[in-house]
Amino acid sequence: MQSEIIFTHEPIVIPPAVLPSREIGACVEFHGIVRELEHGQPLAGLDYEAHEPMARRLLDRHFTALSAAHPCAAVLFIHRLGWVPVGEASLFIRVLAAHRGEALRFLSEAVERLKADVPIWKRAAQ
Amino acid sequence: MQSEIIFTHEPIVIPPAVLPSREIGACVEFHGIVRELEHGQPLAGLDYEAHEPMARRLLDRHFTALSAAHPCAAVLFIHRLGWVPVGEASLFIRVLAAHRGEALRFLSEAVERLKADVPIWKRAAQ
Repeated sequence: MQSEIIFTHEPIVIPPAVLPSREIGACVEFHGIVRELEHGQPLAGLDYEAHEPMARRLLDRHFTALSAAHPCAAVLFIHRLGWVPVGEASLFIRVLAAHRGEALRFLSEAVERLKADVPIWKRAAQ
Repeated sequence: MQSEIIFTHEPIVIPPAVLPSREIGACVEFHGIVRELEHGQPLAGLDYEAHEPMARRLLDRHFTALSAAHPCAAVLFIHRLGWVPVGEASLFIRVLAAHRGEALRFLSEAVERLKADVPIWKRAAQ
């Protein structure tokens, strides 16, 4: 599986999808957007920090494991760091696969694993 | 829930996402792409036809039902009709919601329901 992991301090710019073969039937994309209310408190945005080398290693490991369970052709992962205002995306994930079932399961479990143990932290900014 | 259903005979052009509130935390998008192999046979593309008024009625009903089960803020559904070559999208669905769980479940079930009973047909073109 092709895998690309990008961290950026700028607003996320989504590159056009390039299909690695004529056997791609599903492209699933997730944009994680900063919401105004967190635990009932209004925010102006969130401030994200990461331990990038460790985050990359863990994400690579997760993507490899997920790809064995849910065969996919490619994953693109982009996480914005620094201050992200309400209404803007902090996270973008694109998964390409032959079938939508695998792509959706890969995506869903990738976000679960990201939140579980990948060293990316957020701090509320009011 | 906002709902927009578009049928087009042109390549799908995806409009920019406009967030209906500051409480949108998830935008999930699905592109259904024509694959080269269908039942082991190589194709050049697929030819799509729809009974548009009935397809709209059924999609509206499905989206309303799904929104009760998985609260979402908006769904955009675009289906291309006519000839779609391998490697191009015949279907695009975008779901906006506060949380990714609802958006992913809505999307996944919307595609299942689309395939189950919405009058859109495809014919292989070799």
